[in-house]
Amino acid sequence: MNEPSVRIVFLPSGLRGSVTPGTRLDQAARQIGADVQSLCGGQGKCGKCRVRIASPTANRGSLSPPSAAETEALSAADLAGGWRLACQTEVFGDVTVEVPEESRTRRQVIRKAPGNRAITPNPAIRRLQLQVQPPDRHFPMADWERLKTESAFMDQAISPVPDISVLRSLPAILRQNEGRVTMAVHVDGHCVGILKDPDIPLAGVALDIGTTSLAAHLCDLATGQVLATASAINPQVVFGEDVISRIAHASTGPEATDQLHRSIIDAVNDLLEALWDQSGISPEATVDMVCVGNPCMHHLFLGLDPSGLGLAPFVPVVSQSVSVYARDLGLHLAAGASIHWLPLVSGFVGADTIGALLATTDEWNGKTVLMVDVGTNGEIVLAHENRLRCASCATGPALEGATLRHGMRAAAGAIERVWIDPETLTVRYRVIGDIPECPVPPVGICGSGIIDAVAAMLKAGVIGPNGRLKRDLNTPRMLVSGNHLAFVLVPAEESATGRPIVIDQEDIRAVQMAKGAIHAAGRLLMEAADVKTVDKVLLCGAFGSVIDPVAATLIGLVPETAPERIVATGNAAGDGARLALLDRTRRVEAARLALRLEYLELTLHPRFQREFAMAMFFPHKETMPSEKETR
Amino acid sequence: MNEPSVRIVFLPSGLRGSVTPGTRLDQAARQIGADVQSLCGGQGKCGKCRVRIASPTANRGSLSPPSAAETEALSAADLAGGWRLACQTEVFGDVTVEVPEESRTRRQVIRKAPGNRAITPNPAIRRLQLQVQPPDRHFPMADWERLKTESAFMDQAISPVPDISVLRSLPAILRQNEGRVTMAVHVDGHCVGILKDPDIPLAGVALDIGTTSLAAHLCDLATGQVLATASAINPQVVFGEDVISRIAHASTGPEATDQLHRSIIDAVNDLLEALWDQSGISPEATVDMVCVGNPCMHHLFLGLDPSGLGLAPFVPVVSQSVSVYARDLGLHLAAGASIHWLPLVSGFVGADTIGALLATTDEWNGKTVLMVDVGTNGEIVLAHENRLRCASCATGPALEGATLRHGMRAAAGAIERVWIDPETLTVRYRVIGDIPECPVPPVGICGSGIIDAVAAMLKAGVIGPNGRLKRDLNTPRMLVSGNHLAFVLVPAEESATGRPIVIDQEDIRAVQMAKGAIHAAGRLLMEAADVKTVDKVLLCGAFGSVIDPVAATLIGLVPETAPERIVATGNAAGDGARLALLDRTRRVEAARLALRLEYLELTLHPRFQREFAMAMFFPHKETMPSEKETR
Repeated sequence: MNEPSVRIVFLPSGLRGSVTPGTRLDQAARQIGADVQSLCGGQGKCGKCRVRIASPTANRGSLSPPSAAETEALSAADLAGGWRLACQTEVFGDVTVEVPEESRTRRQVIRKAPGNRAITPNPAIRRLQLQVQPPDRHFPMADWERLKTESAFMDQAISPVPDISVLRSLPAILRQNEGRVTMAVHVDGHCVGILKDPDIPLAGVALDIGTTSLAAHLCDLATGQVLATASAINPQVVFGEDVISRIAHASTGPEATDQLHRSIIDAVNDLLEALWDQSGISPEATVDMVCVGNPCMHHLFLGLDPSGLGLAPFVPVVSQSVSVYARDLGLHLAAGASIHWLPLVSGFVGADTIGALLATTDEWNGKTVLMVDVGTNGEIVLAHENRLRCASCATGPALEGATLRHGMRAAAGAIERVWIDPETLTVRYRVIGDIPECPVPPVGICGSGIIDAVAAMLKAGVIGPNGRLKRDLNTPRMLVSGNHLAFVLVPAEESATGRPIVIDQEDIRAVQMAKGAIHAAGRLLMEAADVKTVDKVLLCGAFGSVIDPVAATLIGLVPETAPERIVATGNAAGDGARLALLDRTRRVEAARLALRLEYLELTLHPRFQREFAMAMFFPHKETMPSEKETR
Repeated sequence: MNEPSVRIVFLPSGLRGSVTPGTRLDQAARQIGADVQSLCGGQGKCGKCRVRIASPTANRGSLSPPSAAETEALSAADLAGGWRLACQTEVFGDVTVEVPEESRTRRQVIRKAPGNRAITPNPAIRRLQLQVQPPDRHFPMADWERLKTESAFMDQAISPVPDISVLRSLPAILRQNEGRVTMAVHVDGHCVGILKDPDIPLAGVALDIGTTSLAAHLCDLATGQVLATASAINPQVVFGEDVISRIAHASTGPEATDQLHRSIIDAVNDLLEALWDQSGISPEATVDMVCVGNPCMHHLFLGLDPSGLGLAPFVPVVSQSVSVYARDLGLHLAAGASIHWLPLVSGFVGADTIGALLATTDEWNGKTVLMVDVGTNGEIVLAHENRLRCASCATGPALEGATLRHGMRAAAGAIERVWIDPETLTVRYRVIGDIPECPVPPVGICGSGIIDAVAAMLKAGVIGPNGRLKRDLNTPRMLVSGNHLAFVLVPAEESATGRPIVIDQEDIRAVQMAKGAIHAAGRLLMEAADVKTVDKVLLCGAFGSVIDPVAATLIGLVPETAPERIVATGNAAGDGARLALLDRTRRVEAARLALRLEYLELTLHPRFQREFAMAMFFPHKETMPSEKETR
């Protein structure tokens, strides 16, 4: 396949593929399986296939110039901003294409849904409803001083200090409402906002910033209720799939760091808009925010130089928790609101791990527990005898469904479970969003789907313990595609794209690399703690919440062979952010956890490479299936 | 004089006057006495008469279009920004014209010079010189945590919290200097900045924002030394001479408030540039700032709605001291620096009064003292038996030299002292900047000059106790100019403008109004305290520092008749700002003072109008010169 091709990534699905130069974007979307709707059949009339090209200026040469239909349908400002009609635009170079919600037929499935953990709110921001007295000519006290006096009558423990934004809006709000106002005040005394609506609940945002995806929950600070949830693809994927490529890009200079910083801030502002649209809460009432994410996401979100994370000895700029005004980041919360980042542990173990530990304290405290958080990077924590050891390893985004031949995010159309009959090699699968009333044909394979598929292929003998596809199987499902052997999960006639959905040797290799690193890290932590077996394995992360424990043990994702000990905890990192948002004492707990965690640097460990090589076998070189019962 | 005329104000001199429409700006400057140089004699060739028109867009119709010589000499950007050549520009409507330093032949005299009060520095911002250890691969501590550890070794009392700007610059600074850095940390723990130069002194700014003029002192925070001083005309004068007109303009809407806010912030940024140019200190090393000013200046500086200051019961938005990040105001100090405003007392008694009290504590504490701060507004404080009573009154800018027929700021060319021979009515005068080696002809009259002139006229019988110019005096110095009688201080042939410099009946009236208000306020405060006489009168403000006590008693500026009890204290408000900048305990003292001050609202006082009317006489209706000794 040496004919020229251009590479396209569709967001938010993350579906990607190569097409012949000159292919129209709507055709490319169909070939790759991305969801772009069209009502007029590609005539440029309905305007329903509006998409946005990332970095429009830089990518101008990659696309055909706007057609007459496009200049008709789109304003000059839209065109300048990268908006195009997919059915009118031919592609001649690599591009990333955002498909907005209104141009899609299917809705995204949010895997980073909030967990069910009960929280008794004890928020950092308190809400006081006040009736401020009008100024008296014999005692002409200033607006703020009258408000402050009233707040002291309501709660003597509070001595508020006004944010400058509060002072700027105060006279008009007092006038409009005859003195009836709601004050949002931090327990440290900082008055974050004054609201004119006395009945409005105060809300906060728990934000989980993954290398590949973002998830935000808007919560009522008084009740703890989740009012809205929104998620999106991290727009930084354009700069590379993993943290290493982001750090490499940022290290080219302050402009590049700022570019990555701006892109994540813009995306979070879009998420906030979505949360406010869903809930009816206003930006002014959104007075607090807690963030979790790995160290690279932390640095880029805060606009810090991440280059130290990419060079030995891999140090962050700051590891303690950071509070920063939303306005200093350009985030559109209440004018006086702050953003609180949970602390980092090391250059590779971040606030996401702290969040996951916070959310699962009851499950690991006093026990021997291995916690595995799998995203584009893997973090592994071993709790044992009051000590917390942790390690980190690069896994690549394969286990999140990205970069596979037919990989995709956990969205409608993604294969999430796979069963293969060992006799006939018949494949059954389950597709996200596919219900009897509304069938959804498969488009690609997501993270849990690839684990399940590899486990099923192993069990059915399609691959061996070394991960090689068996060339000599007598089945039309095994074929040579490109330079690689590939196994057909879905034949062309069943798929949404009209082309077969396959898993090829490179996909399996990517899974082996990822699981090998996690398995080896877990082993070395257990060895360091002199532990032979664990009470429980907690699987965290978007992927962890849906993986089948049996499939996990079959492929040897972790050094634990009993599926009943493997527990999915959902998006524990995001839950930790929500806990810290709603209960400020958890922020102190997070700081303590960060100090307690003992970091094991695997790159310095003399036996990591060897352990990694052995753990690339399914389930492990030392523990072949036949030995399983004897262990 | 009913022919059409346009009004021109020249900045920074504040000289103003009316000219016939179509007059060239250089001619207008000459007529009014403003200092605009010209080398080529008005041919548009030398480009030395560059001036800037305020609000160029709004004022486009007031001026002739740019000539060929101007489009030659000035760039399109300069023209758009309001730059013109005075010799090429004809004026057809009211305008304000800024004459930059390089287009003037004379230098400005700074009346708001720092006082000599000795200060033992105890600044809010401390300076730590640190040698941060490089990261270790076996103990990979974050950049900030290594810095923090080092700071704790140097001073255990400090537990710094980083400003986001510090985290952003930290990795590069540590790299550039092999870990040798200077940390600027507030006593509250906020780390304001990290500097790479280990020998740099940390500096702060004391800023006195007057209705008409601004004065800033850059001080070394460790030694207290004044490193540089700069002053400027408050650019808000374009919107009106006094606080009432500024409040009226701001009350037209948030855009107007923002316009006034931006204009003062821009002017302060210009002052800061001047301070840095003079001293060689960098913006990054300028880590603290304390401001004083009246409530209107305070509100406009902070971007607060001042409309409450213009309506009964005249309440400010906030009266306690306010700290706000420089970056939130757009001020170019160190990225993490804060601005501290001393507190206000009421809607009319501001941080300038608090500053003046701070600076003169030793002079009033335990004594019966009247402190008078005269600017465009007058503030009067009576200290007596451990109580501090204060009042405020509108005086207009006459006592600052503005709005008089031939008034001007205290700049080179201003008449500052006047003597009149009672027999011959010969006038002698002293001109600012006039020295034998370099004679300066008089241009106009400044604040101390008008007091002195009125006192001399009273003594010589040119005016009576009721302030009327004596029409029947047999002297060519008494003439009718326009609709008013006027007394010629300087004949045409002696003046810089080629026209006589006169004091007319309206000028005297303005002085009567101003001094009447101050005198009445002082009387009512003394009456409230049941005090018949005071130990001392402290005259503060730019004007107070040069007034002749004998002249002050002659005209009855204050209810005290013994000149030896009248003491000029210099710019006490500015000195107070400098004290609070250099010694943080003074900020606490300022807060205590603000609470102690008892405000007497004169507009509510049943007898203020009557007292005011009587005090308009020279020196007072009840205390005619003949009664002086009997009191």
